[in-house]
Order: sequence, then C-alpha cells, then structure tokens
Amino acid sequence: MSKTIEDPKAPFVPNYLLYLLAAASEAASARFHSHVRTRGLRVPEWRVMACLTDTDGSMVTELARYAMIEQSRLTKIIIQMDARGLVSRRSDPKDGRRVRVFLTPQGRTLADELVADARAHELELLKSFQGGDGTEIKDTLRALIRHLESDQPDQADGTASLARNAEIADS
Amino acid sequence: MSKTIEDPKAPFVPNYLLYLLAAASEAASARFHSHVRTRGLRVPEWRVMACLTDTDGSMVTELARYAMIEQSRLTKIIIQMDARGLVSRRSDPKDGRRVRVFLTPQGRTLADELVADARAHELELLKSFQGGDGTEIKDTLRALIRHLESDQPDQADGTASLARNAEIADS
Repeated sequence: MSKTIEDPKAPFVPNYLLYLLAAASEAASARFHSHVRTRGLRVPEWRVMACLTDTDGSMVTELARYAMIEQSRLTKIIIQMDARGLVSRRSDPKDGRRVRVFLTPQGRTLADELVADARAHELELLKSFQGGDGTEIKDTLRALIRHLESDQPDQADGTASLARNAEIADS
Repeated sequence: MSKTIEDPKAPFVPNYLLYLLAAASEAASARFHSHVRTRGLRVPEWRVMACLTDTDGSMVTELARYAMIEQSRLTKIIIQMDARGLVSRRSDPKDGRRVRVFLTPQGRTLADELVADARAHELELLKSFQGGDGTEIKDTLRALIRHLESDQPDQADGTASLARNAEIADS
C-alpha cells in the first residue's frame, strides 16, 4: 500500500481517475470507431444500432441512455437514420405518444455485421491484454457504474441509468 | 471462470468492454463536469488548465493529447482562453515556430481551485468505492492504455500518446 498516501508533488492529470477512464475509453474505442465510420455510421448511430440488436423496439429515452447523448439530439439522429432506411419509428400500440425504434432489414444486416466485428475486436483486445477474458476489468467497471449511479439519483442528463443497463449483464 | 465462455444469447451492449469504459467515464465525470461548467469553463478548457498546472508552458500538441481533442479545435479554444485572460501564448525562444501555453495569474488561481476540487471529488469517490484508494483500478486502466498504445503505433489522431502520459504516473 505504498501508494496510499498521495504525494502532493505527483503530477495531477496522469494520476486522476477521471482522466484515466476517459483516456482508456478513448484509446480502446479509437480503432473500432474508425471502422464504424468507414461503414458510413457516426458513433451515436452505431450505438443505437448495437442497442437495437439487443432490444429491438426500444424507446428513444432508453436508447439515449445507452448512446450517452441527449435525447433531443438523439431524436434528430434517429429521424436521419429512418430517412436512410436503417431504422423505422412506430407508435406504441398501447400508448400512441410513445415512439418505438426498430431496425429495418437493411439496418439489421449492417448492425449484425458490426456487432460481429465489435465482438471480434474485443476478443482480440482482451486476449492480448493480460491474457484474460476481461471478466475482472468488466466487473470493476460495472461496480463503479453502479456505485456512481446509486450516489447520484437525481442526475437529470442522459447518463442517468447507465448502472441499470450495466446490471442487465449480471442477471 | 464460469464467464469465460461467452453466451451467444447474452446481451451485447452491457457486456461490451468499450461500452463499459465509455459508460464508466461518463458516469464518473458527469458531476464534476457540471461543477466545471458552473465555473464558466467547458470540459476541454478545464483539461487544458489541469494539464498546465502539471506542466506550465506545454505545447498545443501535448495539450491536445491530454485534452483528447483535435489539435485544430484545441488551437481555437486556446485562442479564446487567451482572450479571456486565462492563458497566454508565447513563442518558444529556441524555436519561434513553436507556441507554448502558460497560465496567467488569473488562470492559475482558477486552475488551482479546480484541481483541489477535483482531488477532493476523486478522494470521496474512491473512499466510498470499494473502500480503497483506487490503486487497483488506476493500475488496470494504465495497463490497458499502455497496451492499446503499443498495439496502435501509427494512430494519427489526438489520442496517440495517451500511454506516454499515463506512464508519467509510474515514474
């Protein structure tokens, strides 16, 4: 536990958890996000499509949580995706004010291909990183997300229910 | 190791490393980034100022790596910060083409306050999260950043040297 007592002269940024999280996320995503763009999708569009492969017919509120962008911005993105034939929007039969988003057959084909690419990219990364399957780092990140969420019940932006999403993985 | 063999029916997104990293980063940063905005700074501006508290007189290329945004966008941000009196830009005496960025006294006061707030926020978070000082999660994230960087030597965007930044913390 030699690092427990913080050295006041230690540089701030490279020891700062929020920096390390952002930097790890950025570095891990850079290559795959380039691949996503070569397939003609922006990152939020890819996230929406990945979510729909899990739960087709999600509402925009749910997709905004996963895609980690504001609902109003996501609504515009989904309208564009609809115009390009990747998704279709339909009113919920039980509540006409609710709009549900579905993959079109064309969208499904692209989404399935990209999810397969993402799984392969992740597998390769985890195999070469500490020779594992990522259970440990994933469990730590899930625990952190849950902890942060339980600590911030009133958070009003699109990140409010990341922990609930992460918990699905534990069930 | 019951989770080693991937269940093909398991949902994709909540088990996907890149999602968990992005979600953890987003959730961990949300509250502090709100605080940064109440002090009149945007997130990249805060990152620049935090970096300058470590190494005043950095070049824009170095700041772009840490702030994780494109150099051309960061140059515009730094010109705005200069106009607001937070930083000053000066040519390197040894190489006039190189511009170095320094905190002004006003910028230093604000940066020092925010770094102290960030340290306090981090300490509180780490104390309540698994009762630790974050050594384990930070070491894992540093190792992941290093691993990703060593795997992507030709990456041309602003994330190219995140691992080098992270390594400073180990020295």
